[in-house]
Amino acid sequence: MSKTANTGAGKVFKKIELVGVSSTSFEDAIKNAVAKASESLHGLAWFEVTEQHGKIVDGKVAEFQAVLKVAFKID
Amino acid sequence: MSKTANTGAGKVFKKIELVGVSSTSFEDAIKNAVAKASESLHGLAWFEVTEQHGKIVDGKVAEFQAVLKVAFKID
Amino acid sequence: MSKTANTGAGKVFKKIELVGVSSTSFEDAIKNAVAKASESLHGLAWFEVTEQHGKIVDGKVAEFQAVLKVAFKID
Amino acid sequence: MSKTANTGAGKVFKKIELVGVSSTSFEDAIKNAVAKASESLHGLAWFEVTEQHGKIVDGKVAEFQAVLKVAFKID
Amino acid sequence: MSKTANTGAGKVFKKIELVGVSSTSFEDAIKNAVAKASESLHGLAWFEVTEQHGKIVDGKVAEFQAVLKVAFKID
Amino acid sequence: MSKTANTGAGKVFKKIELVGVSSTSFEDAIKNAVAKASESLHGLAWFEVTEQHGKIVDGKVAEFQAVLKVAFKID
Amino acid sequence: MSKTANTGAGKVFKKIELVGVSSTSFEDAIKNAVAKASESLHGLAWFEVTEQHGKIVDGKVAEFQAVLKVAFKID
Amino acid sequence: MSKTANTGAGKVFKKIELVGVSSTSFEDAIKNAVAKASESLHGLAWFEVTEQHGKIVDGKVAEFQAVLKVAFKID
Amino acid sequence: MSKTANTGAGKVFKKIELVGVSSTSFEDAIKNAVAKASESLHGLAWFEVTEQHGKIVDGKVAEFQAVLKVAFKID
Amino acid sequence: MSKTANTGAGKVFKKIELVGVSSTSFEDAIKNAVAKASESLHGLAWFEVTEQHGKIVDGKVAEFQAVLKVAFKID
Amino acid sequence: MSKTANTGAGKVFKKIELVGVSSTSFEDAIKNAVAKASESLHGLAWFEVTEQHGKIVDGKVAEFQAVLKVAFKID
Amino acid sequence: MSKTANTGAGKVFKKIELVGVSSTSFEDAIKNAVAKASESLHGLAWFEVTEQHGKIVDGKVAEFQAVLKVAFKID
Repeated sequence: MSKTANTGAGKVFKKIELVGVSSTSFEDAIKNAVAKASESLHGLAWFEVTEQHGKIVDGKVAEFQAVLKVAFKID
Repeated sequence: MSKTANTGAGKVFKKIELVGVSSTSFEDAIKNAVAKASESLHGLAWFEVTEQHGKIVDGKVAEFQAVLKVAFKID
Repeated sequence: MSKTANTGAGKVFKKIELVGVSSTSFEDAIKNAVAKASESLHGLAWFEVTEQHGKIVDGKVAEFQAVLKVAFKID
Repeated sequence: MSKTANTGAGKVFKKIELVGVSSTSFEDAIKNAVAKASESLHGLAWFEVTEQHGKIVDGKVAEFQAVLKVAFKID
Repeated sequence: MSKTANTGAGKVFKKIELVGVSSTSFEDAIKNAVAKASESLHGLAWFEVTEQHGKIVDGKVAEFQAVLKVAFKID
Repeated sequence: MSKTANTGAGKVFKKIELVGVSSTSFEDAIKNAVAKASESLHGLAWFEVTEQHGKIVDGKVAEFQAVLKVAFKID
Repeated sequence: MSKTANTGAGKVFKKIELVGVSSTSFEDAIKNAVAKASESLHGLAWFEVTEQHGKIVDGKVAEFQAVLKVAFKID
Repeated sequence: MSKTANTGAGKVFKKIELVGVSSTSFEDAIKNAVAKASESLHGLAWFEVTEQHGKIVDGKVAEFQAVLKVAFKID
Repeated sequence: MSKTANTGAGKVFKKIELVGVSSTSFEDAIKNAVAKASESLHGLAWFEVTEQHGKIVDGKVAEFQAVLKVAFKID
Repeated sequence: MSKTANTGAGKVFKKIELVGVSSTSFEDAIKNAVAKASESLHGLAWFEVTEQHGKIVDGKVAEFQAVLKVAFKID
Repeated sequence: MSKTANTGAGKVFKKIELVGVSSTSFEDAIKNAVAKASESLHGLAWFEVTEQHGKIVDGKVAEFQAVLKVAFKID
Repeated sequence: MSKTANTGAGKVFKKIELVGVSSTSFEDAIKNAVAKASESLHGLAWFEVTEQHGKIVDGKVAEFQAVLKVAFKID
């Protein structure tokens, strides 16, 4: 399915763009970014992955970096 | 907000691509395509516009054509 | 449906890019651009919307601007 | 025409991304989002539509959702 | 010219995505896909090429593969 | 490597677009969609991921949603 | 190689967009469009294909349509 | 800020695509193209860069080539 | 090289989108936007150019406008 | 179908980008590029067309230029 | 965050494109490709995922295939 | 104009992707990358810019980074 959840005419959402980092997986990088966003924002509703990249150190993948947009309702 | 509605782990949705036509507006063209799809499909959940074009006859806009993906739940 | 109309092998069409403006809707902006094009060009056959934006004045939408390609047959 | 208005060397603008919802049209969804943004931001100058989608309920279009970037001058 | 043909307000078209294969040319790959589609579908109206790739065997091009969308009218 | 497998001139493949959901990972969401498709379709050959997004509930990622095209041979 | 040919600082080129049609191949459609353009324009230098589509009649490919940009030097 | 300037409902703009060349910089290539356009066109309002490339001679950058769309008001 | 600098698992960055203006060059427009951002934000780490356009006055380039994303670490 | 052929977990492929030229067709341009690549590389597996353009001389198409990625297995 | 690491004016990096395969996950496919690249290249600095697809055998996902660009410093 | 120079049927070009860095401008970053490439490659013919980004240190632009494809003739 797609992304949205409980919406309604007249509601307005805002999307911000974040970059999460993990040494394990893109899913973990996404969770880190969402966790950080939820510290200061309420009403997080969905996310969209826009880029996936990472860092290589000593010939090995050291970081998975996920760029994502996170959407939340504006009161 | 984004597009989805009631989802859940394990659910699977399918997207099909349609082209609706209207002499009035893109919104009307979308409604025509959704109405046609709902004749044979259940569980239509959301749509996404992918292209907007139209036909010109005698120097006037004769048709608004909306290309859209329509998503529905597969049972 | 898609865009074209009466074509035929050997025919050649040209596309030009226009920006129409309206205080009401994107459909109206498109009609304005097509009307202007038809003052000097014959054989307008179809249009394709490539961008949609607008102007905000005093916190309100003042203009809907539609960028569109307009195609016509070259004799 | 394009999007900007009164600019000048040295000025800096910021773009934020919003999602407006309407049961009527994309134009109305845009107006809803711009109205919400203007409650807390001054100097809104232009908007750009980046996505158009919507929600279908009982085989009918229930919501038109417009994703747009809104730009405003940073003082 | 563009793609469409005889359209009209209220008509709805569907696009499906196919991959045709040929040892000769992309045009031949397209014809193969359209021929296969016409075995089970009526009202095929236009096609759009979305990708072109192929297979290499023993250092020689063995297959031309055309990915195309095929549109047809829904009754 | 790329996507295809056993092909041949004259063969025709069809691609359909699905959305799989998982509370765990994008890989699991893909497997769910492929499993559902294989209930009614034979000759599934490859898949292509086109979008990755998800749902956030109570400030936590509740669903990973993978949009994918699935290709299969048409007999 | 790429597209350009004899250039030089200070030269300015213009690109126009055409649609050529052929019952045979995309190459032939391109040649038709270039031939038409050369009737009224001098200094044609290169072309770039931007879209490939076509018309289907009675279940068979009736037209190959190539959209191309054609560049020429402005004196 | 974005691109436009003095607009108004009912106005129509046209965009043409040019390629400017400079041995110095992309900015200079843009100025060359705009200067050439202004010889024959009035009401030039804004430009948009769509591609940047160049020519290498004897292992050194010999030309910066900027592809740009130039917009002007149609009277 | 690419864009990032000192990262680490668990770190989260945010990207905002700005538009800088300069009468001289795109590089100068970028510097203006970054300078403005650094007045209120700490930890600016990298930028990415997403669009380049400008304003034409009296047939001459009057402004170079660079749209850029600026990324900074969220504490 | 898509592009790949005999693959397997643990295998790694490399893609290089080439430009082939032909006075006849894009297919011929592709064959020329693949033939050149096969002089020095083993294990060529598939190709993907990324751009199609060409050169015009004296108002006639003089070259068809195909840009393609060629993939081969790394031992 | 983004991708780069220790850079500096005058440094030059090269990006190559690889396809990694895994029966388990995209992350594993990426690690396989990076491991292979590090056998012959020094100074690997970052990677960027450009495509994600895979192979289906007997109705089940048999391979996850990640296409990625790998960047390394040129001495 | 576009990019190519002296070409001919049967010639084959290869494109490689580089990242140049400069503390001054994108043009300088491009020159650095081309200079490095010309140390080991002959027949460099043209370049194409694909990305522009940079590094920010202490709230100031410290590096302009240009990603470019460089094309050269294969003998």
